[in-house]
Amino acid sequence: MKKSFLFFVVLVGLFFVQVAPVLANSEAAGSAHSFAETFLWLALILLAGRLASLVERIGQPAVLGELIIGVVLGNLILVGLGIFENIKQDQFIAFLAELGVVILLFQIGLESNIERMKQVGVKAFLVACVGVIVPFISGTYLIGPWLLPGLSFTTYLFLGATLTATSVGITARVFQDLGKLQTKEAQIVLGAAVIDDVLGLIILAIVSAIATTGGASLLTIGFITLEALLFLIGAIFFGRLLAPLFGKYLSKIHSGSGMKFTMALIFCLSFAYLAQKIGLAPIVGAFAAGLVLDPVHFKDFEKPEIVRDVKTVMANGSASGLAEIHEVLEQHEEKHVEDLIKPVGYLLVPLFFVMTGMSVKLETLFNLPILLLALGITVVAFLGKLVAGTVAGKVDKWIVGVGMIPRGEVGLIFVTLGRTLGVISDSVFSALVIVVILTTLLTPPILTWLLKKQDKKTLQPA
Amino acid sequence: MKKSFLFFVVLVGLFFVQVAPVLANSEAAGSAHSFAETFLWLALILLAGRLASLVERIGQPAVLGELIIGVVLGNLILVGLGIFENIKQDQFIAFLAELGVVILLFQIGLESNIERMKQVGVKAFLVACVGVIVPFISGTYLIGPWLLPGLSFTTYLFLGATLTATSVGITARVFQDLGKLQTKEAQIVLGAAVIDDVLGLIILAIVSAIATTGGASLLTIGFITLEALLFLIGAIFFGRLLAPLFGKYLSKIHSGSGMKFTMALIFCLSFAYLAQKIGLAPIVGAFAAGLVLDPVHFKDFEKPEIVRDVKTVMANGSASGLAEIHEVLEQHEEKHVEDLIKPVGYLLVPLFFVMTGMSVKLETLFNLPILLLALGITVVAFLGKLVAGTVAGKVDKWIVGVGMIPRGEVGLIFVTLGRTLGVISDSVFSALVIVVILTTLLTPPILTWLLKKQDKKTLQPA
Repeated sequence: MKKSFLFFVVLVGLFFVQVAPVLANSEAAGSAHSFAETFLWLALILLAGRLASLVERIGQPAVLGELIIGVVLGNLILVGLGIFENIKQDQFIAFLAELGVVILLFQIGLESNIERMKQVGVKAFLVACVGVIVPFISGTYLIGPWLLPGLSFTTYLFLGATLTATSVGITARVFQDLGKLQTKEAQIVLGAAVIDDVLGLIILAIVSAIATTGGASLLTIGFITLEALLFLIGAIFFGRLLAPLFGKYLSKIHSGSGMKFTMALIFCLSFAYLAQKIGLAPIVGAFAAGLVLDPVHFKDFEKPEIVRDVKTVMANGSASGLAEIHEVLEQHEEKHVEDLIKPVGYLLVPLFFVMTGMSVKLETLFNLPILLLALGITVVAFLGKLVAGTVAGKVDKWIVGVGMIPRGEVGLIFVTLGRTLGVISDSVFSALVIVVILTTLLTPPILTWLLKKQDKKTLQPA
Repeated sequence: MKKSFLFFVVLVGLFFVQVAPVLANSEAAGSAHSFAETFLWLALILLAGRLASLVERIGQPAVLGELIIGVVLGNLILVGLGIFENIKQDQFIAFLAELGVVILLFQIGLESNIERMKQVGVKAFLVACVGVIVPFISGTYLIGPWLLPGLSFTTYLFLGATLTATSVGITARVFQDLGKLQTKEAQIVLGAAVIDDVLGLIILAIVSAIATTGGASLLTIGFITLEALLFLIGAIFFGRLLAPLFGKYLSKIHSGSGMKFTMALIFCLSFAYLAQKIGLAPIVGAFAAGLVLDPVHFKDFEKPEIVRDVKTVMANGSASGLAEIHEVLEQHEEKHVEDLIKPVGYLLVPLFFVMTGMSVKLETLFNLPILLLALGITVVAFLGKLVAGTVAGKVDKWIVGVGMIPRGEVGLIFVTLGRTLGVISDSVFSALVIVVILTTLLTPPILTWLLKKQDKKTLQPA
């Protein structure tokens, strides 16, 4: 047992240390880059990403592990191991990572249900608005100009925008692990996190359009805001019109899950393209496509529902019971677009986060101002969401506030985009990734402590 | 109802006719190729591939539809519509198509079970061998030199190799549709089709190595054969050793389906890389990886088994019945690597076939010798497998022979590879794609007719 574990460790080590230099050399020698080498890079990143999910064992989200292992692999050059430098240059990996983030936003869109958002009510909406506005304003107008004097206003805008969106996954996980998902606090936090994703994406649309056109007059901002809103509303309106039509005829050609999957991806990809075409980020389009595809048509029933259906059949006790159970199972097997998209996500999404981690240049942090910048922004990131907690009404405001603190996927997408557009420098990029890591790393223990304290006080959860 | 169908047709038409020229122009104007445009190409190809699956309605396999729609789209330039020419140049689409064929061979490998192959028995093995040797020899030594005089021996080798592998999917589908899957003939054909995939891939490994090194001496051939065999055997031996070990420790990190999926892909991609590294085609490695991952560990139970398990729980009628059903369903939900890979296949595999179709240059067929070549090779393709049927023992030899005729995925992979290596010219490529289309198109009606004739004769199927 112990021996075989050693063997396993040695193998994984060999995989990284032995195979990669061969690659690095073969490319250094100037040979053409073949697809096969990209396949190996892919395998390496997938393995690294999966090993990184070890952090889930200590209550941390997988995305944090992927980021950190990316940072480690991408900075091995600092200790003389340059074997991963070639991955950074691989255009196919870059393409797959970009496709991955489009898929991720599509998934987030699929999970966000417009109807459900309406139900969460005014409180979640208030928390979301305050939690978006306060960090955005303080990032853009206070902490940016103060800690990074002399940079362009667009850089400050991106800095502010990065701090807006709460990472719903991380928060949900902590509540789930402690069996608190049904509390009022959790419901508000989860609702607000979904709404601030939408608000964040609108801000992203505006900010990136400003960065692209260069203008930042009130008129431009107004125009871009209008365009972004019109796109989202238009996409949702026409999408809701077209989706059932497409579904109807495509399912007549073939009603299998392959068709459903393809139809969903066609929506995702063409909306991503359209968004880009009118000057918004492709991910905004992918998110809209996810919102459009009505989960009611697509989403698998929850597992308890399968059991309930099977139970109903059993209760009826008819002679054809077995055939009916068969049918129930088949029905449930038919309906999961979200589940069908998942494997594509498994393949592509970790690429984005490992690659994001790899592009952090640790040497930029060996520099007091940047380190102070990271810490300063982290403080703003904390305070902004704690303020948001105060408008949550008659609940534990601290729990709501702390629950909103983690930044994650959406924030990282913002900084990556900012860097692509040339408004976020390498050092600011590294600082912001550190902010995301810190908010993600610090929240779970604090939230756990608050929730356990609440338990002791009331002994009767809501 | 009719109106909404018209609306749908108009929409799809608009998608193709309106959006694509915009793209074509924007690229003609010299603007940088952005990822977003590749996203739209992807959506277009996916839509085309799905519309092509309409051929399944008339009893034809989806791959045939994908090929044909590819041929149509890729040759619209002949009637003045050059809007799809840019797709052919898109390197990211090319990469995804290559990844798609790797995934496809991995899937075929996963479906081929070494144990099951042993059981099919001597007859299937005989049929497979004859069905590989006769078309290969007659392609390489007779029809090639006769119809394409003056070309290199390597070209003839590829021509022969293309004719070896039966497309198991097409044949299985016809037997299935007529409820004949359990007949002896069907079992022999299906077993032989799997074995000739393996034989075909060994031949491919040899032939492509010859094409790469240029040598074709008996010594070289012997060496390459040995290398290919050693790789397959080595991959299977070490793979079977490593797979459980990897599975054991990776599943300790995380036991969800994401981990299973990632582990499978890591195997697939690294074996593909290794194969390329020692001079074989990446798909040979992917196939070996599929063989290695034991379906017993991974494959979902058949649906009847789910029902059986649920039934057992019901029969026990224990108080905790509901929880147990829940558990059974969860167990069954846990185990499907093949199902997890499927969506990735839905996304990537059609790309390969539509793109293969698109690279057929129809104008090369406006030329009597090439047309005769296609027909001549088709005749050899038919005869070679009919001869194989004669060694099938006491069954309807015609049914076995005709059942082996369809060529498909593997053959297409061979010609594509041959063209990449520069030994298959555009015209020979087009002719061979036509051969694949003809064998696929003609077999289902003939086989259906034979099976119905057999029914009338015996009225008691085996």
